Amino acid sequence: MPTARITVPAEELRRIARGVLERSGVSAEHAAVVADAFVWANLRGIDSHGISRLPRYVELFERGEANAQPAIRIERSRAAAVVVDADRAPGPLALTLAMREAIELARETGVAVATVRGTVHTGAIGYYTTQASQAGMAGIGIVAGVPNMAYAGARGAAVATSPLSVALPAQTHPDFVLDMATATIALGKIAQYRARGEQLPEGVAVTAEGEPTTDPAEAKVPLPVGGAKGSGMSLAFELLASGLANHPIVSQFHAGVTGHRQNALLVAIDVTAFLPLQEFRRIVDETLAAVTSLPASGEQPVLTPGQRGAATAVQRTLEGVPLPAKIWGEVAEVAERFGVSAPQLSGAA
Amino acid sequence: MPTARITVPAEELRRIARGVLERSGVSAEHAAVVADAFVWANLRGIDSHGISRLPRYVELFERGEANAQPAIRIERSRAAAVVVDADRAPGPLALTLAMREAIELARETGVAVATVRGTVHTGAIGYYTTQASQAGMAGIGIVAGVPNMAYAGARGAAVATSPLSVALPAQTHPDFVLDMATATIALGKIAQYRARGEQLPEGVAVTAEGEPTTDPAEAKVPLPVGGAKGSGMSLAFELLASGLANHPIVSQFHAGVTGHRQNALLVAIDVTAFLPLQEFRRIVDETLAAVTSLPASGEQPVLTPGQRGAATAVQRTLEGVPLPAKIWGEVAEVAERFGVSAPQLSGAA
Repeated sequence: MPTARITVPAEELRRIARGVLERSGVSAEHAAVVADAFVWANLRGIDSHGISRLPRYVELFERGEANAQPAIRIERSRAAAVVVDADRAPGPLALTLAMREAIELARETGVAVATVRGTVHTGAIGYYTTQASQAGMAGIGIVAGVPNMAYAGARGAAVATSPLSVALPAQTHPDFVLDMATATIALGKIAQYRARGEQLPEGVAVTAEGEPTTDPAEAKVPLPVGGAKGSGMSLAFELLASGLANHPIVSQFHAGVTGHRQNALLVAIDVTAFLPLQEFRRIVDETLAAVTSLPASGEQPVLTPGQRGAATAVQRTLEGVPLPAKIWGEVAEVAERFGVSAPQLSGAA
Repeated sequence: MPTARITVPAEELRRIARGVLERSGVSAEHAAVVADAFVWANLRGIDSHGISRLPRYVELFERGEANAQPAIRIERSRAAAVVVDADRAPGPLALTLAMREAIELARETGVAVATVRGTVHTGAIGYYTTQASQAGMAGIGIVAGVPNMAYAGARGAAVATSPLSVALPAQTHPDFVLDMATATIALGKIAQYRARGEQLPEGVAVTAEGEPTTDPAEAKVPLPVGGAKGSGMSLAFELLASGLANHPIVSQFHAGVTGHRQNALLVAIDVTAFLPLQEFRRIVDETLAAVTSLPASGEQPVLTPGQRGAATAVQRTLEGVPLPAKIWGEVAEVAERFGVSAPQLSGAA
């Protein structure tokens, strides 16, 4: 059964997000940043990190898990190192500030690292790395979170589906934006299989007890991509992001200490420390063109990371963001609750 | 049929490698570095990058592909950025010098990046990242090379099996050392299946024409780990390592320009820019202990990256390095050719 969809102009989503966040106690400046991260994700088709998060963020504020008025501390500890203590700020705020700092330091030193300690829900990590690529830099980001993925050779949830993102500036091509989790399948994708009544492919998830399953109702723990490779990367990201932030999550989780928290590590590399930016953009363009010109192995054209997201953003900027009616209902409801006007929209199946 | 093996003390391998390299025109200082990289790989069980490479390096020098007396140029372009022009130096030399520079700069700035342009055979990349972990830093390394792996959605060899390594200092545990290629299976592993007359698992490789196969004689192109994830990482590594080194490989390859060359990008992060080193070591230890204490999903204990290599190194330091008789024969032959004495050893099946 097709899901009814409501198409909402991106600027309406932005206005609603800003309004609701401001009335939840978030400053106007901070609300604009978080709203922009939501809209960016929706425009690029990363709907799991878009406006659907607005009601969740309000809940996180109301339950005291996230801090609407955080006292974010930013310490430049070295010429190329900055520590951001998020004070449970939403990820879009803490990571945007952190990448801003990293970019500023990297202009002087060539590269800079920012750690983010104790944030809540980092959102679409490509949002932060593209801040670097839009500034003519290479952006690299990793996130550490609460264990929800299997570790090769172990039973149960052991490490997180920690993502990696790399963004690089191109010339005529859209920016290169890799944004990938270390899991074979996202938890949200498993839910979609369940909703459609379809079986999962083999080898993507296990039950809570660690038994392989293709039943999406039984599948609780995604498997790491490439077995020991994916879980090794996830563990490396935990040690880099949480270790350098002095805020371990995995060891605490297995010691029985839980809590909704995430850490991140962001890197900005100033391309001009190595070669002229136009030269680098040309190399990126020529490399992306070489790959997309390869003969396809199937019906689909060969795509490079970020290409589909950029095309989706062009389309959705013009035509609006299609949202499942259920999601739009939740957004309109939270808007109404906070006295923010939401347009009356009806959906098409 | 079991392969006859010869066990050689590590110090003998080191002496032979140094002797042969020196008589190939490599300076004593440089020969010691390359020999150490070979022996390190053999001790840790990464035999594909150990002494078996010695006859290959001699060939590379003799064919003029690698440079025995390179004019390596090291330019510190910013406070945290260094460019190493390898002049076709062997990877162990160019990357060791590059990581040494990155570590030195990172002590001041907190993080530093070194690019390596135009090297030949980078060897075991964990060798360079552990230089950082042994200096109490986080080491990250990526390598770009000539396309030999499939790209998701494209036919034929499109990108390289470019590896990623992350090394981190621990306390009582051995250092964390992730060292992984972006391919599902190594080309050397495919050759082992062929030698044993076994079929490959499904989904790890394709023929030269891009058709899926489990016949190791037909399998020419390994598939990327996790499909678009592995090939996306490989492409990111090409753009970071070759792009920032201003020395593209993938675009040149597909334009018909070939040549045996590699580039690399190495990062050193000084832990003390973020927290006391002992605190970081403790977090790494506790996290590794938490993971290895998890219930195993099978018969094998749960391992963390670098653990098996460290145990192998302890054993092989004591007992010597077991080499296939064929490999030892090639090493003894090249030693004899250059007038370097090699012990008379006989193998056990």
